[in-house]
Amino acid sequence: MIRALVWGENVHEQKNRVVREIYPDGMHETIARGLRESGGIDARTATLQEPEHGLTKEALENTDVLLWWGHAAHGDVDDAIVDRVVQRVWQGMGFIALHSSHFAKPFKRLMGTSCALSWREAGERERLWTVNPAHPIARGLPAHFELENEEMYGEAFAVPEPLETVFISWFQGGEVFRSGMTYQRGNGRVFYFRPGHETYPTYYDANIRKVIANATQWAFNPNITDHDMTKAPNVPVEKALEPIEERGPRLHAAGEEGSR
Amino acid sequence: MIRALVWGENVHEQKNRVVREIYPDGMHETIARGLRESGGIDARTATLQEPEHGLTKEALENTDVLLWWGHAAHGDVDDAIVDRVVQRVWQGMGFIALHSSHFAKPFKRLMGTSCALSWREAGERERLWTVNPAHPIARGLPAHFELENEEMYGEAFAVPEPLETVFISWFQGGEVFRSGMTYQRGNGRVFYFRPGHETYPTYYDANIRKVIANATQWAFNPNITDHDMTKAPNVPVEKALEPIEERGPRLHAAGEEGSR
Amino acid sequence: MIRALVWGENVHEQKNRVVREIYPDGMHETIARGLRESGGIDARTATLQEPEHGLTKEALENTDVLLWWGHAAHGDVDDAIVDRVVQRVWQGMGFIALHSSHFAKPFKRLMGTSCALSWREAGERERLWTVNPAHPIARGLPAHFELENEEMYGEAFAVPEPLETVFISWFQGGEVFRSGMTYQRGNGRVFYFRPGHETYPTYYDANIRKVIANATQWAFNPNITDHDMTKAPNVPVEKALEPIEERGPRLHAAGEEGSR
Amino acid sequence: MIRALVWGENVHEQKNRVVREIYPDGMHETIARGLRESGGIDARTATLQEPEHGLTKEALENTDVLLWWGHAAHGDVDDAIVDRVVQRVWQGMGFIALHSSHFAKPFKRLMGTSCALSWREAGERERLWTVNPAHPIARGLPAHFELENEEMYGEAFAVPEPLETVFISWFQGGEVFRSGMTYQRGNGRVFYFRPGHETYPTYYDANIRKVIANATQWAFNPNITDHDMTKAPNVPVEKALEPIEERGPRLHAAGEEGSR
Repeated sequence: MIRALVWGENVHEQKNRVVREIYPDGMHETIARGLRESGGIDARTATLQEPEHGLTKEALENTDVLLWWGHAAHGDVDDAIVDRVVQRVWQGMGFIALHSSHFAKPFKRLMGTSCALSWREAGERERLWTVNPAHPIARGLPAHFELENEEMYGEAFAVPEPLETVFISWFQGGEVFRSGMTYQRGNGRVFYFRPGHETYPTYYDANIRKVIANATQWAFNPNITDHDMTKAPNVPVEKALEPIEERGPRLHAAGEEGSR
Repeated sequence: MIRALVWGENVHEQKNRVVREIYPDGMHETIARGLRESGGIDARTATLQEPEHGLTKEALENTDVLLWWGHAAHGDVDDAIVDRVVQRVWQGMGFIALHSSHFAKPFKRLMGTSCALSWREAGERERLWTVNPAHPIARGLPAHFELENEEMYGEAFAVPEPLETVFISWFQGGEVFRSGMTYQRGNGRVFYFRPGHETYPTYYDANIRKVIANATQWAFNPNITDHDMTKAPNVPVEKALEPIEERGPRLHAAGEEGSR
Repeated sequence: MIRALVWGENVHEQKNRVVREIYPDGMHETIARGLRESGGIDARTATLQEPEHGLTKEALENTDVLLWWGHAAHGDVDDAIVDRVVQRVWQGMGFIALHSSHFAKPFKRLMGTSCALSWREAGERERLWTVNPAHPIARGLPAHFELENEEMYGEAFAVPEPLETVFISWFQGGEVFRSGMTYQRGNGRVFYFRPGHETYPTYYDANIRKVIANATQWAFNPNITDHDMTKAPNVPVEKALEPIEERGPRLHAAGEEGSR
Repeated sequence: MIRALVWGENVHEQKNRVVREIYPDGMHETIARGLRESGGIDARTATLQEPEHGLTKEALENTDVLLWWGHAAHGDVDDAIVDRVVQRVWQGMGFIALHSSHFAKPFKRLMGTSCALSWREAGERERLWTVNPAHPIARGLPAHFELENEEMYGEAFAVPEPLETVFISWFQGGEVFRSGMTYQRGNGRVFYFRPGHETYPTYYDANIRKVIANATQWAFNPNITDHDMTKAPNVPVEKALEPIEERGPRLHAAGEEGSR
């Protein structure tokens, strides 16, 4: 069983009648339920309002894939928790950023860019095209699928060139958007998936659920590796793999830690 | 003329006799001189010790390509200055991280990874192989070139999969390293180049100078674009490119700023 | 001056009244004129009907960037000429495939895929979005630009994941398409650019002309490198860069050619 | 069970005493045995000498992942069979090119490059470094592993920039090589893996076996997709997803096949 953790900001569900009516248990719970029903995934939830936002050291150590939905309160996420999440991704935890989480702190930290885009909230039609139908995240998805009402996000989306582009969206109002893109950061796989504005029932859609479940399976690293991608070990001369002799001047004493 | 700015930490040149003898004017000045002599590049310098580390708003606005060398004092670089540098890269300034700057704050911010690696200071032989000889950064370089004394950096180097791998190093002690890699972040091009340990005269080497000059030319964006990759503009319904009517519920009032 | 060669199939211009009226001098000549007027490019033309399709050994040796437009007669292009073109790309010649040349023999050979897509000829509106505004090929182009009448090409486009996606098209009928993508094959840069159906005056459009001129500049390799990416040289033991002794059994006699 | 097919050229095993003594049942059989013992893989073999090289239409239709080892007789492989293999990769069959198969016809067709490299047969030491330890193909592999005797392959290796670089080799004689690289062509995943010269017992090595088994698992597409990446379907105007009216001149009659 893959241990997924769905993190929800859980703000608009409390404050906005429309959102509450669509997602009475919170968006995070609806997303988690979709994962559970997909099979092979044990999905828990955590929210901004919990102590340490529900992202304690222990919670992350028991998480294989973290899914993130935030919008109104990106700035309220504690920087120390963001560090912890990012470190865990580097160790091998998968990270799936949903919709408005393009501006979530951990996603921006992992991308190294502003993650800006253009947008319009008009309930227009979005059509997602599967541009890499053989990708594990696209398995079982049709050549294209529609969401009758969605917020528009438009290019240029300020993210790095992805490893793979899996989906591209067409919008009724005339824009396009790279809606499904893969990355790797340290040992962790990262997927951005565009749809999911809180005033529409997007996370009940069967195709959307399938993409999110596929992405969770794809982002899962079955043996979070022993290679720690955050350490910078010194290799002493006498332990060099090929025999060498030390030559010339040096800065560091033997066995010393490097500078950071 | 490309306006390059070579930023030097300038610590070991002050404290360490060996480094001072090799680089009596500072490593930054030696690197800048190489750029000037390459033609077409106007190279200034800035150091950690200057007010705002020499990286004032005005200085950056007059910089096309920033080259960075740091090692002992990464932690002393002010986070507000790092933000400023990163923002300027997103606008289109080139950024070239040299050697131990794999751990420099702006480079780690742009990569979104730990940027860790293994290392050994033994003055061993490094041989750089040109794996993409047609790349603009490799122009005029031979199939391979040697540095008789260098610090070793070994894989796995914890950076994202690059756009392009230009050079790979062979080390006498048995390691390999991806020594020249390209990235783009926002509108800015980024190049990491491995050699340059401060106790060796690496920045006087003709091949190394050519790579750094080529990389500066490559990273130059002649018209830092009008597309601002840090803004998230709202597109009002009545200004949609295709005529649409607003449908369904919405969160935002017309013309409102999005959440960050 | 960059030496561009615009290759035109030149079939529909002869057979179809509509095409002839739009492009009385042939599409290739209109494209070449656009390059000449952009500055810095010396553009010649060649057509299918010429001896060796105008792509003699000498013609290619005097070409820095080859632009290719074909549609009705892909199958009539001689395989030996295709080999010659591909070899020249590997040496460092740029190659720009225009519109229906997604099915041109040299493009398919360079991609290693079927290059299939879906299509519709309805004169609908196409809007190209600049997704990488800092890319040299996008310089001077707006955030988006329109062609009021174009043929539709739809995803999934069966090409390899590109190095960079520069433009994505929106179509009135509901499709999207990755309309500008970069690749490298051997020492040669390759760009695919979608618009250009022969029954519309696309190659007179100022934005389209700018993209094609930019792409020609980008694909130009100023010193087609001395590294020959088609040779597989043997390195004899006694010329190894590090001293080694031959050990164990071997297949090849000293200095022998490898198997192909 | 993944259905793997190991194709062996089977020439040197017949002609060369040294090779026959190391691989008395043929290299293909030794490789297949390693796959079978890894679990979850049903591995058959085929050789050049069989009718249709053992690669009948039926054989390929029952193959999920094809592994290819060739060296002396690349030119003897029938072009029609190569077409069949390439088409099957485009449909979703995995393809793993081993060692000297860098010059195998199907690999060159899939890459679109010359696939040239430099080489030396001196039985020298090769050390493979795992540069992407989290990659599925690197699971269970150490940070580095050695082959005491191998043929050297040196950069520049004339292949396209890979999706991912998984392994890089260090050679005793002073060269480096990108020894494990991933690609996708159509729906099929492609992996190149360097080691495996026929005069050394490389395919008995536990690490090498693990890489090949991992790569076979990685290249497996559990539901070879319904999206046929070789068809170019016409979408008639009246079946457009958004209502459009046909405008302007056209070349093709309704429902007509496109040009190839």
